[in-house]
This record gives sequence, C-alpha cells and structure tokens, in this order.
Amino acid sequence: MNHPIYNFSAGPAVLPHSVLEQVQADLVNWQGSGMSVMEMSHRGPEFMGIMAEAEQDLRDLLAIPVNYKVLFLQGGATLQFAMVPLNLLRGKTKASYVQTGVWSKKAISEARRFCTVEIAASNEDRHGSYVPAQSTWQVSPDTAYVHIAGNETIGGVEYDFVPELGDIPLVSDASSHILSKPMDVSRFGLIYAGAQKNVGPAGLTLVIVREDLLGHAPAHTPTMLDYAIQAKDDSMHNTPPTFAIYVAGLVFKWLKALGGLEKMAEINARKAQRLYDLIDSSGFYRNPVEVRNRSRMNVPFTLPDPALDEAFLKGAKAHGLLQLKGHRSVGGMRASIYNAMPEAGVAALADYMAAFARSHS
Amino acid sequence: MNHPIYNFSAGPAVLPHSVLEQVQADLVNWQGSGMSVMEMSHRGPEFMGIMAEAEQDLRDLLAIPVNYKVLFLQGGATLQFAMVPLNLLRGKTKASYVQTGVWSKKAISEARRFCTVEIAASNEDRHGSYVPAQSTWQVSPDTAYVHIAGNETIGGVEYDFVPELGDIPLVSDASSHILSKPMDVSRFGLIYAGAQKNVGPAGLTLVIVREDLLGHAPAHTPTMLDYAIQAKDDSMHNTPPTFAIYVAGLVFKWLKALGGLEKMAEINARKAQRLYDLIDSSGFYRNPVEVRNRSRMNVPFTLPDPALDEAFLKGAKAHGLLQLKGHRSVGGMRASIYNAMPEAGVAALADYMAAFARSHS
Repeated sequence: MNHPIYNFSAGPAVLPHSVLEQVQADLVNWQGSGMSVMEMSHRGPEFMGIMAEAEQDLRDLLAIPVNYKVLFLQGGATLQFAMVPLNLLRGKTKASYVQTGVWSKKAISEARRFCTVEIAASNEDRHGSYVPAQSTWQVSPDTAYVHIAGNETIGGVEYDFVPELGDIPLVSDASSHILSKPMDVSRFGLIYAGAQKNVGPAGLTLVIVREDLLGHAPAHTPTMLDYAIQAKDDSMHNTPPTFAIYVAGLVFKWLKALGGLEKMAEINARKAQRLYDLIDSSGFYRNPVEVRNRSRMNVPFTLPDPALDEAFLKGAKAHGLLQLKGHRSVGGMRASIYNAMPEAGVAALADYMAAFARSHS
Repeated sequence: MNHPIYNFSAGPAVLPHSVLEQVQADLVNWQGSGMSVMEMSHRGPEFMGIMAEAEQDLRDLLAIPVNYKVLFLQGGATLQFAMVPLNLLRGKTKASYVQTGVWSKKAISEARRFCTVEIAASNEDRHGSYVPAQSTWQVSPDTAYVHIAGNETIGGVEYDFVPELGDIPLVSDASSHILSKPMDVSRFGLIYAGAQKNVGPAGLTLVIVREDLLGHAPAHTPTMLDYAIQAKDDSMHNTPPTFAIYVAGLVFKWLKALGGLEKMAEINARKAQRLYDLIDSSGFYRNPVEVRNRSRMNVPFTLPDPALDEAFLKGAKAHGLLQLKGHRSVGGMRASIYNAMPEAGVAALADYMAAFARSHS
C-alpha cells in the first residue's frame, strides 16, 4: 500500500509542497536569468529584488509598523539568546525572563553570560504544563526587558495572551509559532525566530525590532551581533543566506495566496483541535498541558505504556507518518503541525492514532 | 544569437552545473525519502548521513589531519573576524595581522575590538599589488597568532607561499581560494572560509581548527561563537544550515570525481594563465598585481579609458558573460573564475576581450 508521506518533524520541518515545486522548477535557471538563485551576487538586481519582495511580503503578513526593522540574519535562535542581552541591556545590568520550558531555559542560561537574570515567573511547580498568568509575574521596574518563549516546542506550551509591560520592552522567541497566526507586532520590542519551523530552510533567522532599541550594543560586541549595524546595512553587512531568504520569500507568498495569517490561524486551530480532541476522548493518549496553553504547533502526547512506543512509531512509519518520536527529555510522541502540514496529514495521523488505540486498548 | 551564460560573480558565485542538476532532481523528494533535504530533522539518520559524508569528503580532499576539527558554522568570514580573536587569544593581548587588501583590513578592524593588533606587514606602499615576503614581517614572539588573507578577492592578490611561524599559530581566511588547490593543513592553526565562492551556497562557513587551540574562549563569549562548544557538539549545538551543507557535500563529491585538488589546481592555473596572458599581451587591458601574487581566482583588470567600461560590460552581457564589473573600490573589471567556472567560460571571456580590444584600440 502506498501512502503519501507526512513529516511531523519539529524542525527543520515540512515546507509547502507548491513552494518546493517552484524551487525545483527554478533551481538551475531562475526565471530565465541563466543563474541559480544560489549563484547570484547578493548585490545584483535579481537578488536585491527577491530580498526586497520577501521583506515587503513579511511586512504585509504581520502588518509590521514602519518604526520596526526587519533583519535577515544567521545563527538561529541560539545566537539571539546572546544578541538580545548584548543589544538590549542599554547600560542596565538586569533582564527578566519567564521560564516555561527547555527553550526559555536555554535563553536564560545564555543571558547569564551577560547580565543578572531575574526569573519573572516559572511553570516548574506544575511540571512545565502551563504559562503563568501575568498577574503572578515579578518584574523589577529597572529591568532592561522581559523575555518570553511564545511557544515551547518541546513541552508544547503556548502563550494565550500577550503580556502588557508598559515601557519595558517585551522580547519573544517566536521560532515555532511565527506566522501561524496574526501578531500585534507593536506590543513587542523585539521578535526573533529561527526559520526552520514556519518560515523556510535552516540557516536563516528573522528579527523584527523596534528602531529605538537599536544602537546601544557595547564596544566589544562582534560587528555581526550588533543589530544596529545589521539594520543600517539592510542585513547585508556581509553576504546574507541568500537561498534561504529566497525560499522564505516563496513561503510568504504562499501564505498571502492562502489568505494571510487570519486564514492560516483558522486552519491551524482546526488541525490542533482535531488531535487534542482525539487525545482527550481516547482514554488512551495523554497530553499534560493546560487546555488554554496547549500549543497549536507542537502536540506532545504519551501512550499508556512506553513499551507501546516502538510499535506506535513502526506502524506510523508504515502509514507514511514520519518523525513522531517525542523529544528525549519528555518521551512519548510529538506531532509538529506547522503551517505547511496539510489538514490531510493531520487527518491521516488522527485516523492512525484512533486505530492504534482501538487495537491496543 | 544564443550564448551559454557564464557568471563571473565574486560571490555568491557559479556552482558546478551537474551539482545544480542533482539538487534539482532531488529537491522535492530526496532519494525516495518523501522529504526535501530542507525538511529533514538535522538529527535524523538521513541528514546525519549527508553531513558525515560531507565532512569525510572534505577531509579526504584536503587530507585534513586527525587532530583538526572540521566545523560547519554560520555568519560568514565576517563573524570569523571576531571568533578568531575571541577564541585564539588564549590570555594573550596581542595578535598579528598581515595587511594585503580590503578583506585583511576588515579582519584587522574587527580584531581591534578584542585585542591589540600588530600589523606584521602591509602592501600599502605599492598600492596593494603584492604579498610582502615573509623576511620583511615583524612578528612579536608574544603574539597570539598571525592572521593572513590567503587570497584577496577584491585586489586579486594571492599568497604564493605558506608562512613558517614556528610555534605561533597561522590563521588564514581562505574564503576565496579554499579547495582551489591542495593545502598543507598541518601548517595552519586555523583555516576559515565562507562557502559562497568555492564551496556552496551563502550561509555556511567552514572552519578547520587544530584541537589544541580549542577551549580558551573567555566566559563572556556567546556560546555560538565558541569553537570548543561547536566542536564538542559536532556543529550541532543548534540546527546547522542543513541545505547549504548538503549542497557543499555535492560540491565535494564533484571535486573528488574530477580528480581531487591536484587536478583542480591544474585546471585553475590554466584558466588564470589564459586571462593574464591575454591582458599582458593586449597592450589594452592592465592588471597591476606582481606576477607571482596574481590571484588564480579573481582577475581584476582595467581598460585604457574608464569611459569604455560601460560598452565593455554591455557587450559582455550580450555575449552571455555576466557580473564582470569590478569592485567599486578598485573600478574596472573583475573576472572571478572559481573552481566551478568551466574552461569554456574563460575561453569565451578571452575571445570577447580580444575582440573588444581590437575594435577599441
């Protein structure tokens, strides 16, 4: 029996099929230019056009205000863990972090190289299964910024609110939920995202930053890690990751053609609901996250007995359902259902999960 | 008249046609996996295999000794300008740089953020037209390392010798000549190269570093900028630029199939000689670099009157010869003839140059 393949990897992750087909068609000779996009000078008119369109389409999708810069950088979210304190401390010595899982912990650990970290709130009291309500946060008035991880890829925990912090800049690691729903950019000082989940190939990092926060990096900051320099040079202080920017640009166009982020959010809500409904009604699978904070992007779940995991994964693979093994720190399974995962893929997974539960209950 | 297209861009630059065709064939569905390489988890068996092969092929090509680590990083040579002093000062306060053109000057400027820079030698006395002989270098015995730019992409100046420094580590920016000829890696402490000239797509940076130099970065170094951490995690401290590594791996296989770096060096010498012979015998074109230091990769040349530049470029484009305009800091023309530029492309350029000189003399 031949199944279509559905890839539930947490990242790098599935890309829209039509985008891949266009990349393939234009791979050797982009639009009759005689060159692959990989071969184009980043300062030539062809690539400058590709990059300008990518930025404009991203601005359109997220309705990014004019006083925000869009940067196309390298190094992944992990490099942002250092760049955020280097650039945003602005002479202060303290920054606040909300701890909600593995990725916010990594951000905290890196920030400690550069400043005193104040943990504004943590969900460790209930095994990382929720986002602490803002009313419980402790934020010192002299903190430089507050950092959150908008969606925890491993725990499957997502914010259901945007914190309101007055004049204190809010910074979000949006790697695993950017472009999955509309976002009011004006409520953030800085948003960053590794591309390899909802945007494009690994090796590209998006940064959206309010202009007044730029220009405060200390003198020993490596040039490439200074947002102000990258902003001044329009992300071309040196050669940017051109091919990844090109693919991301096609993903942005795919989102616009689909109807934009409102429409994408509707589809994503439907996909997630289908899996959580099945999990909750199964009496077999289990997801430990509070309902209001369940991630629409990463759905972790366990089977009643870890001894069943191998059979579940083997059967899934036979049904064309790939990369469902949970992160080693959590165990069980994880279905990552980013923008590019079609509803048919979620339906196929739900059908398989239901059948597996019936035959193993 | 329909000409084949030859792209003389200085970088991102031409890639081997057969590599692009293979990338295209496998773009949507890599070897029947049901996934594009862009969609693969970096920790899955498919991509781990791709990356291990890429590293082994690079090791084979350059005969990299076992006490050297190979790192696949991001950020380009410009980020290496910071990473080198951050990691290699090892408690010392001074590093030595040989200044031979625009790129070594950029490396010097960045290093000054982290240490005292000693200029061991400079070619500014003769307008950047040569590499100072090692006998003229001033290197303090307490310097942390000596940094060179093995080939200056803009000036078209290439080392014709490997400096001998005893116990002082030699560091080379090899961005524009790596893999263009054999290199005795054991004579270097560290070699780095942005990929977008001789290796693959922009967004990948190769670092080859002797193991005993690792582990000395100060505590405030961003994690992603610490070679020791990247080495310990086999370039997977976070998600590496997977697709760029895959394409680089195919380029490595193309080089092996061609006969390796000895063979590549022969071809490159022939290509460069053809252009320099034409320039020198033309009485029309001019290249100012000392013969022994003429770059085999980047051939800058001027016309007798800058007023002819536009006609030259227009005619070149009509003949399918693209991206020949020289860097704005030098003027004139520049033909970058990296590994992937076929001899037929150089022949087409030489023929066009000869005809243009005849009709404009």
